[in-house]
Amino acid sequence: MIVLTEIRDVREHLRAERFAAAKEGRELQVGFVPTMGYLHEGHASLLRSARMDNDLVVLSIFVNPIQFGPNEDFDRYPRDRDKDMALAKREGVDIVFLPSVDEMYPQPTKTKVHVAELTDHLCGAARPGHFDGVTTVVSKLLNIVAPDRAYFGQKDAQQVAVITQMVQDLNMDVEIVPCPIVREEDGLALSSRNVYLSPEQRQASLVISRSLRLAEQMAREKESATAGDIASELVRSIEAEPTAVIDYADIRRFPSLESVPSSMRVKDADGKLLIAAAVKFGATRLIDNVILTMEGDK
Amino acid sequence: MIVLTEIRDVREHLRAERFAAAKEGRELQVGFVPTMGYLHEGHASLLRSARMDNDLVVLSIFVNPIQFGPNEDFDRYPRDRDKDMALAKREGVDIVFLPSVDEMYPQPTKTKVHVAELTDHLCGAARPGHFDGVTTVVSKLLNIVAPDRAYFGQKDAQQVAVITQMVQDLNMDVEIVPCPIVREEDGLALSSRNVYLSPEQRQASLVISRSLRLAEQMAREKESATAGDIASELVRSIEAEPTAVIDYADIRRFPSLESVPSSMRVKDADGKLLIAAAVKFGATRLIDNVILTMEGDK
Repeated sequence: MIVLTEIRDVREHLRAERFAAAKEGRELQVGFVPTMGYLHEGHASLLRSARMDNDLVVLSIFVNPIQFGPNEDFDRYPRDRDKDMALAKREGVDIVFLPSVDEMYPQPTKTKVHVAELTDHLCGAARPGHFDGVTTVVSKLLNIVAPDRAYFGQKDAQQVAVITQMVQDLNMDVEIVPCPIVREEDGLALSSRNVYLSPEQRQASLVISRSLRLAEQMAREKESATAGDIASELVRSIEAEPTAVIDYADIRRFPSLESVPSSMRVKDADGKLLIAAAVKFGATRLIDNVILTMEGDK
Repeated sequence: MIVLTEIRDVREHLRAERFAAAKEGRELQVGFVPTMGYLHEGHASLLRSARMDNDLVVLSIFVNPIQFGPNEDFDRYPRDRDKDMALAKREGVDIVFLPSVDEMYPQPTKTKVHVAELTDHLCGAARPGHFDGVTTVVSKLLNIVAPDRAYFGQKDAQQVAVITQMVQDLNMDVEIVPCPIVREEDGLALSSRNVYLSPEQRQASLVISRSLRLAEQMAREKESATAGDIASELVRSIEAEPTAVIDYADIRRFPSLESVPSSMRVKDADGKLLIAAAVKFGATRLIDNVILTMEGDK
């Protein structure tokens, strides 16, 4: 495993590897897992998928300032270099790209990549500018690494949808591979931000995954359930936990993220539905979701 | 010379060529000239530069709807496929990429690339959204062709500055090569839009290049000339032609496009200065410019 901090070195290294493979008649397949570090088993699952599908695996760790709002947690976002390196090594990563903020933004970027519509709601409504920061940095990283495949966790379902749209619209030559949410045994979706939770908040936070499971069950089992019924059930169930403050609890088409009429029976939905929630416990905002593929479309 | 209309075919062809070269131990160098067609000797000079620097030359011809405003000339933009093909052949182009609007935009793009600040003034002020359309389509084309070098005419000096900024900000792995303006013998900068001019307008339009030359001469020869003096002289000289309607006539730093204080002596300027004008003759809007590198900085 090699650790590189400069863009030039990453490019140079990958160019040499690709060229050497081609000389031997092989097309080198590169898998890329962009992260903000403080790696957990969710990230490990992305790295395992990347390892399985590709000849070479690149992991980037970069806490991207431009995707944080002014009152968000950029400064205190958790960092643990040694633990991250150990996990990367364990998962057979070939190249870790660890750029500084100056390396990625030698000047403040004048260029932004913006995906319209998909970013107007859900996390986009609560975090203005967040997705422009994400799509801009992901564009930069994809341009630096030029991978064949890039892996993203489905926990950030809106991020997956937005990046997939960007790649399609801009004809980026990469396959976006979404990977399933990894959970603690008690159901909490893994997130680097879980470290912020007090023991009481950690316990209370289980209401999110539990409520999403209830909503999913209702969608699957209750023939007459409408999108409105499911959204109400989700809100009711989360609000049963008095310390939970809902940012949103919503049901939308996936991956278009278009709204569905609340009167629509979910059984009648075409394709996939996303049931998603963002909930605050104190200063910590957690997100989680389930994606339903209705029987009629399997 | 081969002509391709599908993105998939362009990618596939270039991939195969690159791979074949690498197998023989060569890194294939690809030069790219993106155009809107109706090719003239300005385009030919770009193709010649590309031919000189690279193993393989790709020309794209695509009249990009999203860079035209609702009241602009998208529908009547001149097209002449046969003449374009003849010029491309003459200049030794290897691949002509001729996509349809549907191929480039199977759905309306939700994603836009935006470069701030550099697009606020000059042509950006008169053509809102124009540069977002340019940077978005150029991103798409660069992602499709993945060239080592891309060639742009310096006549669109703001476009060169904006694209260079985008490539730098987004870490696109391509060298942007600006090429000098090509002029008719009488000074008119070559443009596909010159075809719109009536004989009288064609004659009147000479005022632009003549006035830019005057402004340039003043900047070079008059020690005390300020940026304001030069801008005034430019305006005065263009307005001497009664049918000319000035959109802008401005002096700015290049390539930052930052404004310069009108009281600044141009002799004291650091680096390059752009003197640029956009002038309408009837419905036809023409642009032209000169770039000065002041003695002190050579």
